[in-house]
Amino acid sequence: MTDTGRLETFADGVFAIAITLLVLGIRIPDAHEGLAPALANQWPSFFAYVVSFLTIGIMWVQHHRLFTVIGRSNPTFAMINVVFLMFIAFVPFPTQVLAQRVFVDRQGWLLATFLYGGTMVAIAILFNAIWAYAAARNGHLLREKVAIAVREVGARGYRFGPPLYGLITLLALVHPVVSLIGFAAFAAYWALPISGVLTGGDQTG
Amino acid sequence: MTDTGRLETFADGVFAIAITLLVLGIRIPDAHEGLAPALANQWPSFFAYVVSFLTIGIMWVQHHRLFTVIGRSNPTFAMINVVFLMFIAFVPFPTQVLAQRVFVDRQGWLLATFLYGGTMVAIAILFNAIWAYAAARNGHLLREKVAIAVREVGARGYRFGPPLYGLITLLALVHPVVSLIGFAAFAAYWALPISGVLTGGDQTG
Amino acid sequence: MTDTGRLETFADGVFAIAITLLVLGIRIPDAHEGLAPALANQWPSFFAYVVSFLTIGIMWVQHHRLFTVIGRSNPTFAMINVVFLMFIAFVPFPTQVLAQRVFVDRQGWLLATFLYGGTMVAIAILFNAIWAYAAARNGHLLREKVAIAVREVGARGYRFGPPLYGLITLLALVHPVVSLIGFAAFAAYWALPISGVLTGGDQTG
Amino acid sequence: MTDTGRLETFADGVFAIAITLLVLGIRIPDAHEGLAPALANQWPSFFAYVVSFLTIGIMWVQHHRLFTVIGRSNPTFAMINVVFLMFIAFVPFPTQVLAQRVFVDRQGWLLATFLYGGTMVAIAILFNAIWAYAAARNGHLLREKVAIAVREVGARGYRFGPPLYGLITLLALVHPVVSLIGFAAFAAYWALPISGVLTGGDQTG
Repeated sequence: MTDTGRLETFADGVFAIAITLLVLGIRIPDAHEGLAPALANQWPSFFAYVVSFLTIGIMWVQHHRLFTVIGRSNPTFAMINVVFLMFIAFVPFPTQVLAQRVFVDRQGWLLATFLYGGTMVAIAILFNAIWAYAAARNGHLLREKVAIAVREVGARGYRFGPPLYGLITLLALVHPVVSLIGFAAFAAYWALPISGVLTGGDQTG
Repeated sequence: MTDTGRLETFADGVFAIAITLLVLGIRIPDAHEGLAPALANQWPSFFAYVVSFLTIGIMWVQHHRLFTVIGRSNPTFAMINVVFLMFIAFVPFPTQVLAQRVFVDRQGWLLATFLYGGTMVAIAILFNAIWAYAAARNGHLLREKVAIAVREVGARGYRFGPPLYGLITLLALVHPVVSLIGFAAFAAYWALPISGVLTGGDQTG
Repeated sequence: MTDTGRLETFADGVFAIAITLLVLGIRIPDAHEGLAPALANQWPSFFAYVVSFLTIGIMWVQHHRLFTVIGRSNPTFAMINVVFLMFIAFVPFPTQVLAQRVFVDRQGWLLATFLYGGTMVAIAILFNAIWAYAAARNGHLLREKVAIAVREVGARGYRFGPPLYGLITLLALVHPVVSLIGFAAFAAYWALPISGVLTGGDQTG
Repeated sequence: MTDTGRLETFADGVFAIAITLLVLGIRIPDAHEGLAPALANQWPSFFAYVVSFLTIGIMWVQHHRLFTVIGRSNPTFAMINVVFLMFIAFVPFPTQVLAQRVFVDRQGWLLATFLYGGTMVAIAILFNAIWAYAAARNGHLLREKVAIAVREVGARGYRFGPPLYGLITLLALVHPVVSLIGFAAFAAYWALPISGVLTGGDQTG
């Protein structure tokens, strides 16, 4: 077993790159296009940039928080994190696909929403897997001073991620715009009043 | 509350990637073009590369300096930094748009300048937000040894960022080239004689 | 001689970027294409993304493990790592080339498999070179507490990499799909039951 | 004044990204092209990838070595490093331009060599600037235990960089291929027998 330093550095790197690559998904208008209409037409790209940036940012904050209580690593745990990062690094793809189909092609928009939402569900599930593995066998990868009570509080919070993202995704069957609003609202909810929501958990850090 | 180590690593990652992605905004001339005229025509791309690189670099230096006095983090503070980084990571986009419109299309150039300048204003405002949040409640995220006097000196300096960038941006209404020179001069001012300007602040590090 | 801290940071950066750039290899379908058939046609890109991501991830885990026993560096050792990283950073290229040729053009598929497999063989050889150099002269770059027995166990495991990747590559002469399955199986084998395989080695960390 | 930790992290990030972005300069052959001739025609891209990767790698190793004796930073010193990194991050551009013109268009090849060599000269000059600033005022940014003798040895070595790169660049006036061989030989010279060349300096680390 090793400590988690290099795992966190690597994860931070992937998070930082995936989040920064999002900007490459915003097309530079051609030089001969009028700039104002070109930018206006691209509003879904800007919208998607903000939502995905905040979403990856929130996930990074959560990953960060998780590792304030996880203190050790082993190769299996590292691989679970690699699989988690595989979906984080994938986010720019469904983000661009979704931005391209919004209000353009209903069928494609629905499928793009499923692709985007499915990626989020996968991330949320792997988040739980990271926690479950670290907390297993009486918390074999946790820092010693972390009390059992704290672990359960932590686990309870993450458990809501997969069904919530799943629900927001399925709302696309009503209309894809509902999911779009849902993803944005979920990101804003976490980004804005986050201190209130997390106050309890903060004491563990 | 946690220490700021991983927040700084993540921020450094986003800064480093955003600054390095700027080079992708310089088009490789096609193989059949004469290289000399092609490169000459692209001078705004080279110019914009230098200005944006120095600007992001200066912001990184300032962020770095800020964190010599900020010693703790919490999820809200992390999210404020994520929003700050959302604008840092966005810089390559307005940089390319601006480089493309310089001396080409007056209307587009004006709009591109507003987009570029607006991004800088947003960064400068968020810079103040980072400081304000860290220094709030009697400096609850600051390192203990930082004196109240120092905090006020720091705050006073950052306060000039938003109006200055706003002013340079609005000068585009006179002529966009004035803003272009303004952004370059501002970057050069900070990059070149920076030690003199900051000597006072240096003592806090 | 210096410690390995900055070498590991740099290596982690290259690993993290190379692994995250893989997503740029998945083409965004054009807006006018039907999304479902476009994504379905691109399955080799998704497949290649997963295999290469896991493969680079595994190599990162192994590099990480190696540096739990290597504690010192010198310029020659740093350059060996740079050459190793040159092949890691190259992986997105053969990954895209391979994904493009699968089931399309038999001749090209075979060559693309050799390119991909050759890159893996080179990485595996350099992995052994890193170890060999660090363990040479009675383990001059190893941490002092690492016993001679442990070193030999480590070396023995890495030795299988080059011939195994070479064998999987050459199986393309039977049919390129055999190599494709081989690379995927090899990645899955390491990714899934990794804890069992590595249990012995874990005790050294 | 602060310590150099975050400056090194940021520099390592820019080095790692610039070096990894080089792979994006190798064009993926179109699906309908024969793969073998397409790859063969692209040999200058592969060659340039190797030379630029080794060159940036060597510069990273040297930067790394330099910071084993530099222990403190200030904003001016940070900005000198930002300007240094501005040229490091630029390397992928002249690398691609050069790779595209080799044996294609004599005039363009000559200009591309000047662009590439000029970038290297700038990097070598800034390398000396970093050292000169750190060693100035009786070594005000150096670690205390570094002896004056060692500083001078260090300074002497770096001084050869700018004229050597300048010479290799100017050899393009004879024939651009001479410069091409020169850059490759210079990279190989540093990459291969580096331990011998640097043995003296190693004792300072």
